Amino acid sequence: MLIIGERINSTKQKVQEAIKARNASFIINQAVSQAGAGADFIDVNCAVTSGDEIQDIDWVISVIQSEMKDVSICIDSPNYLAIDRALKVYKANGKLMINSITGEEARIKNILPLALKYNAKLIALTMDENGMPDTAQDRFEAARKILERVKNAGFKEENIYFDSLIRPISTEPKQAGEFLKSIPMIKSLGKVNTICGLSNVSYGLPNRQTINSAFLAMAIQAGLDAAILDPLDSHVASSIAASRALLCDDEYCTDYIKAFREGKLI
Amino acid sequence: MLIIGERINSTKQKVQEAIKARNASFIINQAVSQAGAGADFIDVNCAVTSGDEIQDIDWVISVIQSEMKDVSICIDSPNYLAIDRALKVYKANGKLMINSITGEEARIKNILPLALKYNAKLIALTMDENGMPDTAQDRFEAARKILERVKNAGFKEENIYFDSLIRPISTEPKQAGEFLKSIPMIKSLGKVNTICGLSNVSYGLPNRQTINSAFLAMAIQAGLDAAILDPLDSHVASSIAASRALLCDDEYCTDYIKAFREGKLI
Repeated sequence: MLIIGERINSTKQKVQEAIKARNASFIINQAVSQAGAGADFIDVNCAVTSGDEIQDIDWVISVIQSEMKDVSICIDSPNYLAIDRALKVYKANGKLMINSITGEEARIKNILPLALKYNAKLIALTMDENGMPDTAQDRFEAARKILERVKNAGFKEENIYFDSLIRPISTEPKQAGEFLKSIPMIKSLGKVNTICGLSNVSYGLPNRQTINSAFLAMAIQAGLDAAILDPLDSHVASSIAASRALLCDDEYCTDYIKAFREGKLI
Repeated sequence: MLIIGERINSTKQKVQEAIKARNASFIINQAVSQAGAGADFIDVNCAVTSGDEIQDIDWVISVIQSEMKDVSICIDSPNYLAIDRALKVYKANGKLMINSITGEEARIKNILPLALKYNAKLIALTMDENGMPDTAQDRFEAARKILERVKNAGFKEENIYFDSLIRPISTEPKQAGEFLKSIPMIKSLGKVNTICGLSNVSYGLPNRQTINSAFLAMAIQAGLDAAILDPLDSHVASSIAASRALLCDDEYCTDYIKAFREGKLI
């Protein structure tokens, strides 16, 4: 399981304020604490800020890598100019991921060359010009087309992470099931990976962590390879630790027992 | 999801003492509180008591049905004489279940006629004379043979609940995966049901409820029809409520929101 820490996201009021105010210690604290809780990548989203996403993402990444020399960054933006700047400013000894392309040709045309140039992994949302997918089959078809397109351009399939776009069960009750069904279907395409932006599933419901942690266990069982989530959420951390132990990805439960001893489990 | 409440089990010290002391209010309280928390059946196990299981199970069932006129009982014993007495003493307007047969001919020969006579559902452990199953395939084969045997005797397949025998991941890391794999395999046999004695999976580990609740979400996703568990455990109750909402068994999350309002979710 690859964990992408979601906390540095400008849709959150506090993060937005910290970026505007150039509050470096806040940003560093968010990055360091997520890495300490097991995040493999730190997601950086500056899309909703003062109006200059390019300057903002430059600053955030510079600040993080000034403190964490080996940090891996997931650049989260729909804007290829911001992505380009983020890739240029990144100097740490980690890995890069771009979040995200879709099946829309304009987006692929602008972002794919950047991923190739900087050897970055790519998150691909399983949607295209026709909008959001409804069924597992829709998701599979979108993934298949995107994979064909990026492979033709020389992108390695093991570097792609398909995000099947989970939607809130509060308004669309069948969507969690369709998402889960799509995971093995998409994985049948080759050495591709699957990823999930976890928290959408529980939007609009109370006790969201209860829904999130049960859904994560199901998704891991279905074969999910990576998730964008808050690694400091103890419900989520417990679900990952338990799921890994249950599915033999933590043989003899060594990591699980360590997490318990460190007080990380609920 | 059919819930069988596990709390009235004589392997627990307090239950054993209550049975020995003929403490009716303790037993009634255990049964009523489990039903209130959503148990469809109340499991009654008197196997480890003073030495007279037959008298004990007679007393426990009499006490429960004196208070609960519609109670459904799951008679939990390897002893067909105790099962026979329990079936005879049961007079409530609920349903009966017998826990359990195996593929062992002696056990089938003694217990199956009782299930047929009293129209009781049957839990069948997927094991036989050769002992405990290791793989999903072993479990499937054992289930297939048991099903053939009981159907030949006129038992309806929709009344059988196959228990694939979950074992502790602390000592047998692959067993949870094999259990989960076996669920759809066994369900492919027909209108049969699957069931799980939940808590074994976490034996020997700390924070057992964390493992139990993740495993339950996975098992429900795999198609599990019933579980023997403690419905008063808030981790387990949360996992069931979330799993049902996620898999469209609680459309628009009505029961989930009700459980939240009643303070039942963690």
